[in-house]
Parts: sequence; C-alpha cells; structure tokens
Amino acid sequence: MSALTGKVVALTGGVGGAKLARGLIECLAPDQLLIVANTGDDFNHLGLSISPDLDSVMYALADLNDPQRGWGLAGESWQAMDALQQLGGADWFKLGDRDIATHLQRSVRLREGASLSQVTRELCAALGIQHRLVPMTNDRVSTMITTEQGELAFQEYFVREQCAPAVSAFRFDGIELAQPLPELMDWLAAPDLEAIIVCPSNPFVSVDPILQLRGVRAAIQAATAPVVAVSPIVGGLAVKGPAAKMMKELNMPATATAVAQWYGELLDGLMIDVVDRELVDTIETKTRVLPTLMSDLESKVDLAQAAIDFARQLD
Amino acid sequence: MSALTGKVVALTGGVGGAKLARGLIECLAPDQLLIVANTGDDFNHLGLSISPDLDSVMYALADLNDPQRGWGLAGESWQAMDALQQLGGADWFKLGDRDIATHLQRSVRLREGASLSQVTRELCAALGIQHRLVPMTNDRVSTMITTEQGELAFQEYFVREQCAPAVSAFRFDGIELAQPLPELMDWLAAPDLEAIIVCPSNPFVSVDPILQLRGVRAAIQAATAPVVAVSPIVGGLAVKGPAAKMMKELNMPATATAVAQWYGELLDGLMIDVVDRELVDTIETKTRVLPTLMSDLESKVDLAQAAIDFARQLD
Repeated sequence: MSALTGKVVALTGGVGGAKLARGLIECLAPDQLLIVANTGDDFNHLGLSISPDLDSVMYALADLNDPQRGWGLAGESWQAMDALQQLGGADWFKLGDRDIATHLQRSVRLREGASLSQVTRELCAALGIQHRLVPMTNDRVSTMITTEQGELAFQEYFVREQCAPAVSAFRFDGIELAQPLPELMDWLAAPDLEAIIVCPSNPFVSVDPILQLRGVRAAIQAATAPVVAVSPIVGGLAVKGPAAKMMKELNMPATATAVAQWYGELLDGLMIDVVDRELVDTIETKTRVLPTLMSDLESKVDLAQAAIDFARQLD
Repeated sequence: MSALTGKVVALTGGVGGAKLARGLIECLAPDQLLIVANTGDDFNHLGLSISPDLDSVMYALADLNDPQRGWGLAGESWQAMDALQQLGGADWFKLGDRDIATHLQRSVRLREGASLSQVTRELCAALGIQHRLVPMTNDRVSTMITTEQGELAFQEYFVREQCAPAVSAFRFDGIELAQPLPELMDWLAAPDLEAIIVCPSNPFVSVDPILQLRGVRAAIQAATAPVVAVSPIVGGLAVKGPAAKMMKELNMPATATAVAQWYGELLDGLMIDVVDRELVDTIETKTRVLPTLMSDLESKVDLAQAAIDFARQLD
C-alpha cells in the first residue's frame, strides 16, 4: 500500500486505462480510489445495454479479461454469436457467451429502475471487486464521430467500420443534460484528494467525454490535487486503438507533446515512455520519463505507483 | 408424400406435438400443412421474448432439438447461464447459449415491429424449414395456473416450481382480446381442408389456449374436415410433462378415455396407444389403436401417416 493516506480519482476509458486501473488497486485501499469510466461508448444492441469501457475495466480488475484479444473475457466461447449469424441477426458486434450474461443482467437491472452506478456496483461485487468503479454519469451520453462518411455512432465507427473513416470532430450527444456522477464531484471536492490520474486512454473519445460533463473540468481545475496523465501515445503510435490515427486526421502530430497540448492547463504532469525521452523539452508541463507499457501485473503496479508518487511530488 | 391433395392443420404444444409435427412434414408438402403452436407459454424473461412451444417445434422440424433432454438444442452449451448465475442473475429458466440467439433475434424483430408470425417465418427460413409453422395468435395470451399456492404464471409453475403445486384451474390471460392468426382461420375454412390433427400435447395448457381463441372452436366444428387427436396419455401416464398429474388433480382419471371426454364433440377420432387397447369400448368417439410412442423418425412418420389415413377414413 502507498504511503498516501488521501484519495485518488482515476479517469479511464477501456483497455489501456483498465491496465493502469488494475495496477492502482494494488497500490491503494478500496476507500482511497475512485475509478471513473467513460460511458460515451455505451449503446443498446440486440436489446442489451452494453457499457464497453465499464466492462473492460471491470473484467480487468477481476482478472477475467482476455489480454491477447484485448477486450472481453478470457476463455470466452461464441456459440450465441455463431447461432445469431445463422439466424441472420446482427453479428458485427461480437458478444461472447459469458459476456452476454453481463449485458443481460445489466439490462434487467436498468429496466427494474436501478441506476448504472448501482448496477455496476452489483456486478463488481459479484465478481469480487472491492475497489469502486463508477460510470462517469448515470445519464445517457452517446459519442458521435464526424467522419468523411458522415456522422457515425461510436460503435459503428469503432467496431463496424474498424476505425477506417478519417475523423474530423467528435460530439457527445446528451452531454449538456447529463449529470456527472455525484460521487465523482464529491471526490473531486474532497480536501483529502491527493491525485487525479488520467489513464492512458484515448484523449478524444475516452477522457474528453468525462471532462466535458457539466462542471467536471472546473472541478478538476479547482481541486487541490495535481492532475497527472499517462500518455497513450508511445513512439508515435497508440498502444491500442485509434488515438494516433485520429491525431493525424485532426492535423496534430501523433506525439506525447501533442497529448500534453490537448489537455493543456488541466495537466500538472505527464508521464511519457522512455522511447519518447527526446520529447521532454517540447512538453510544457512537468514530465516524468519511464517505461509505460504494461505487459504484466508487475508493470501495471509499477506504473500505477509511479503515477501516485509523481502526483505527490507535484503537490 | 401422401395421396392427400388437400390441406392439414395440426394444433400443437411443445415437445410431444413437435415429434408428430416432425413426422407430418415427411408426409405432406409444404403447401399442404399448417402447424399451429400454442403461445400461452410465451413470456418475457431477462428482456428476451421467449416462445417455448414455437421453439420446440421449430428446433424439432430442423432436426436441431435435443431428444434426450427433451427441450432446447442438441449439443447446447451453458456459458451465459453459468456466468449469469455468478452475477446473481435469475437462472431458474435455463437458456442455452445458442438458444439465446433465437430469443435475441426474435426480440429484436418484435421490437422493430415485426409480428410473431413474421419472425417465426424468418427464423424457420434461416433454419431451412420449408413447412409453415405459425403461432396461434400474434397477440399476447398468458397461461395462468390456479394452484394450491395461488395463481402462477405458466413458466413459474412449469419450470420454477417443477409442476409440483396441485392445479385446480387454468386461465388464459388476454384470450378475449387475442385475434387467432388469420391464416389459421383461413385454413379451417378452406374447402380443401382434409384433416385437423390435435397433436399429443397437454389438453389443458397446450391445446386449450388454441381452442379458446375467439372463433377457433366454432371454426373447427364448422370445418368439413374430421378432427383427429392423438392421446397424450399412454398407460395412465403423460409421455412428457404434467398432463396426467393435472388430470388427477382435476379429479379426472388419467386415461385416454378422459382425454376423449375432455375434447368431447370436437373430436371425430382418437388415436390411442396399444397399451390402452382395453379402453376402446369406453371411448365415445371412433378410435384407432396403434403404437403412439415416437422414439425415432420412423415412428414419427408412421404415426403422422396413420393420423392422416385415419382422418381420410373418417371423412
């Protein structure tokens, strides 16, 4: 456990952020950590309420995720999907048999009137997760991608189109009306908050929806705790997903420097990978250079502890 | 193919009726046969629209059913159910992984506004079924069982309570408002209808919901074609399901004789098993004695052909 006695808020998207979150739960007690996941990717498919980022983090925290495939559950089977294909159903979004149970149960509970945060708490408890994972909001926010093919819903862009169309803008439908989760606002205002960690997730479609929720950016800037991000761009590439491709299409260099510029004044520190050490002088915020690839539990814990330590030094 | 040139309507519930239906499709061309399934057992579970009798017949017609278990698909896996159980979800109604795809696709299409008969047609086509399987109605009818424990929805009684509570009455919620499928009424009124076959299904909860649909009983009685039933009671026992238990609880003897009495004037002929040959003189309608257990495809086809031949002789 860390010497920190205060609280840490981690903002995360899916796979990359989930790895750091997995490290953070080894460094912090359950009452020290609030993991806040993007829900802009959430969608209803086949009548199921699907929360891809919440599930990626939840499965990672429970050590149930598939590290090779990068999404979904390890040891998953695909009988329902195979049968659905035979029946002529929509099979472009792959759902494993065990993963379907998560969506069925979430959908049942939401229809019963439970909030997404309540359902997430129940699912996490059933999987033995002691730390607190919450959705950024209990309200609907739908990430829409403006592309050369017109505007696409996030999963249409991400899964069906395999991120192929060039993007030019993002829109978070519903963001003006969505209430950030009260717990997130409480933690950001807490006097014993010691770090806000922006996980190595896509800045545009994973972290920005959280930041654009009403009052969240202001609350982060007003917080006494430093904000530390881990660059999702390493050596000009995204470790996973379309972040680097998006940066080029948005006429930004695909570099940690551009990530720092994008986050701007929000950041108090950026952690970049050793392969990008020559970028240090181009980054305006304080920088920490270290290995950021999280290939096993040890490297996840090391990076998580380094992020906490970095924040403490910035404080 | 039969020498019959006319049409046959078969009324069926789940497993027992599905076996005879499987035989009938070997004896009749697709345009000669309308298989009408009970939908009183249909229910919404986990957000899925489930039609147990339609599915039992559909899977049997496609040779995909599990003959040992008696319901569901052969070679089924249970990963989603196992995971749902781990998540604390409702696991009393067992859904196989491939079976879930049927319910997902049906639910999607119903939400899109397709009728149950349209969805059934699509699912059957996807499974290569050429004959016509239809629900008794596109409207909601819910079989309710009055038991010593109070009134139970059909699946609560049948699956959750394993048919244990003694029954005293049945109610088909919605039956007054439900329109029988127009196709059923058209076939019953067709001048070239040559037989109405009541499959060996539960008289009370599988066949009676069909008969109680507005106008169906009258249309059957007005039809020029004879009505032939296969007794679901053999040697005092139901081949499958609670029919014999229900008869005793309703103070009827569990015999083919009582089945004939229950159907009454509706029947022109009853087919009973050879083990019940001594009952012939106690049955008021014309009777045919023959082996009625359908253990393989040959015995299904033989019984189906015998039912058709019996009807022709009664005509």
